[in-house]
Amino acid sequence: MDRLASRVAIIGAGPSGLSALRAFSQAEKNGEKIPEIVCFEKQNDWGGMWNYSWRTGVDEFGEPVHSSMYRHLWSNAPKECLEYGDYSFYQHFQRSIPSFLPREMIRDYIVGRACASDVQKYVCFNSVVRHVEFVADQKHFTLRFHNLVTGKNKSENFDYVIVAVGHFSVPNVPSFDGIDSFPGRILHSHDFRDARQFTNQNILVVGGALSAEDIALQTYKFGAKSITISYRTKPFGYGWPPEIEELPLLTHIDGRTVHFKDGSKRTIDSIILCTGYKHHFPFLTEDLQLHTENCLYPDQLFKGIFLQRQPRLAYLGMQKFYYSLPFFDAQAWYLRDVILGRISLPEEEDRASDIRLWRERGKQLSGPSEVDLLAAAAMFKLGRVHKQENILEFRDKLFTSPFTGTPSVANPICWIDAKDDRIL
Amino acid sequence: MDRLASRVAIIGAGPSGLSALRAFSQAEKNGEKIPEIVCFEKQNDWGGMWNYSWRTGVDEFGEPVHSSMYRHLWSNAPKECLEYGDYSFYQHFQRSIPSFLPREMIRDYIVGRACASDVQKYVCFNSVVRHVEFVADQKHFTLRFHNLVTGKNKSENFDYVIVAVGHFSVPNVPSFDGIDSFPGRILHSHDFRDARQFTNQNILVVGGALSAEDIALQTYKFGAKSITISYRTKPFGYGWPPEIEELPLLTHIDGRTVHFKDGSKRTIDSIILCTGYKHHFPFLTEDLQLHTENCLYPDQLFKGIFLQRQPRLAYLGMQKFYYSLPFFDAQAWYLRDVILGRISLPEEEDRASDIRLWRERGKQLSGPSEVDLLAAAAMFKLGRVHKQENILEFRDKLFTSPFTGTPSVANPICWIDAKDDRIL
Repeated sequence: MDRLASRVAIIGAGPSGLSALRAFSQAEKNGEKIPEIVCFEKQNDWGGMWNYSWRTGVDEFGEPVHSSMYRHLWSNAPKECLEYGDYSFYQHFQRSIPSFLPREMIRDYIVGRACASDVQKYVCFNSVVRHVEFVADQKHFTLRFHNLVTGKNKSENFDYVIVAVGHFSVPNVPSFDGIDSFPGRILHSHDFRDARQFTNQNILVVGGALSAEDIALQTYKFGAKSITISYRTKPFGYGWPPEIEELPLLTHIDGRTVHFKDGSKRTIDSIILCTGYKHHFPFLTEDLQLHTENCLYPDQLFKGIFLQRQPRLAYLGMQKFYYSLPFFDAQAWYLRDVILGRISLPEEEDRASDIRLWRERGKQLSGPSEVDLLAAAAMFKLGRVHKQENILEFRDKLFTSPFTGTPSVANPICWIDAKDDRIL
Repeated sequence: MDRLASRVAIIGAGPSGLSALRAFSQAEKNGEKIPEIVCFEKQNDWGGMWNYSWRTGVDEFGEPVHSSMYRHLWSNAPKECLEYGDYSFYQHFQRSIPSFLPREMIRDYIVGRACASDVQKYVCFNSVVRHVEFVADQKHFTLRFHNLVTGKNKSENFDYVIVAVGHFSVPNVPSFDGIDSFPGRILHSHDFRDARQFTNQNILVVGGALSAEDIALQTYKFGAKSITISYRTKPFGYGWPPEIEELPLLTHIDGRTVHFKDGSKRTIDSIILCTGYKHHFPFLTEDLQLHTENCLYPDQLFKGIFLQRQPRLAYLGMQKFYYSLPFFDAQAWYLRDVILGRISLPEEEDRASDIRLWRERGKQLSGPSEVDLLAAAAMFKLGRVHKQENILEFRDKLFTSPFTGTPSVANPICWIDAKDDRIL
């Protein structure tokens, strides 16, 4: 950390990669000298996860499809919880809008800030990073990448590497006894695209987190006959409509019949595995890979960013997050200041103590409502109360921007009846 | 080629990789000294494409699923056309069986010969090859692989590399105007698993080759309401049942309505893209990659095997094949004899002339019926005649083994009524 880094690689131009680009470009705008930056983006556009694709499995280049978005996804927390501090929703849309937004509007907002910064010049699109290793005797990283359009491979050296590839892209897909002879459709939420494919079906949703909750709601909204949610730990316990029920974990599958721990069984047409995602970095050498479950403070990352055994490798956005966009900004600005030499990282042992301290504190939290980020946190908590009050109406509630004081305005149509993905 | 190769890597333990292993083990059995062999297999079992998996997209390790098999797949040519010369169906099953076999029986036969050879000792399972490059000054290949179970990476050097990864695993997925707003299910045949997922649906099958033909038949057999096959070049023209029709290529999609070149339109529930596969070798450096469409004689491969610009790199089974298993054997035995020094490869210019000659000859063939391999070819041709006569009954016909003279025996139940995937 003792010299100004001359070359920085950013892997991914999704929300966290774009925060990093914004952080550097703001410094440059203020007359500061910044290192040479190259951002490698596998897709042909920026926005990462927010780029909806009708494709599933592998894409037109044989690469695994990155996006896990479905057509009718809406945000599951008020937009006021994920507003950028330096670029408000009002500034972007030039009008007051509702608090809960469809996918396309959130993408428009994220990409809008990127366009307003002069950062596109840093991004190599259609470029997938195949291999990164640290060359110890030369004290740099060698990064090999592949251009999907030209078919060319190239290697370049960098002083810092920022891994901003997200962690909601590579599905965690468990198996169950008898699943290999289930005749119906089996898919992971990663491959869920349009709820209308499940109209009139009896659906099994496996999982106890946000995907399970929202995909159950989606399939209900678009006319599934019945939805059974199977949980491992505990039920959501919302005031579900009668078409949605919660049962403990499935034990085995026999033809179309799914059996559950409590002895009950259901006849199922399609199984949707909402069983989470992996932190997956096959393009990094073993010593550079982060191994973690989805949690608030992954081990081996100082300040949640710098890899303990090689702090010139930084990860952005690898946490379980509640305030995604401003959280990426906070990480990106800190990271930038380290790379610019404004902040010095402590010695290895002190970093280790700091990691231990924060992981201990994290363990004492019982849930997201205890993470306090002032106004945003208060709204986030209120959103959760609304959900408990009425799971079908929580997205019609209105909040006020903590940055600009702009109040939201109501949708002309409530969420349960809004069945296209237009911009509101 | 001037010395006995000391180390040979085989990538893939599917049918073609197993043919290579068999070829070497037969030489060893005859007392011959063979090189050290390491076969890298990404799956936890051998059999390659023939290992059915309920999974689609990526597997439990985040790797793209290899298999494109569906549950009720049966061979589409008589088994007598794909019999191993040194291991007959009669020898394996110890009885006479029908000519057309379900997937599970063909896998059993392929794996049966592998088990009868002492080749398992050569195979590293759960091992995915990430990178192969030729190190010119050391005159060897460096191959980096990753153990999916242990998470460890390792590099090793080899004198020869045999690429036996198949070419029916990475789907070719074209886009069509309006496809991104089609509300129904869209999948490539690679992800087709069970025809019962399409019962009572109106299906669009896009494609003009074997997958399109067979998936149309499958969905008909399991009760699809209607099947529209959309072809680019020409219709199959079989005597389809009234539920199956053929239309020219689709032009665009508007909601659930698909429009075709001839002006007709159909309302569709699911679109199955039977649009073929890519020859895809992202783990090889650019100079080692074969670029070809699916054809009888890919360019740049001497005898269809040895890469012209680097003949220590060999490809097995990269052709459009009709007699798959014995064809892999023929290639594997030839390749083995080159590596053992029994056959010397001609100089580069002579190899180039030979490639040109065969590609010219290939172009003059109008179709597979003109490829003459004596008895197998005669049966293959007859199978095609049967298909034209009755597309629903061609799999009930019986043939006789060209190697053993063993006649097939009839199924107790005809194909159209056989709706599970048991061994017959």
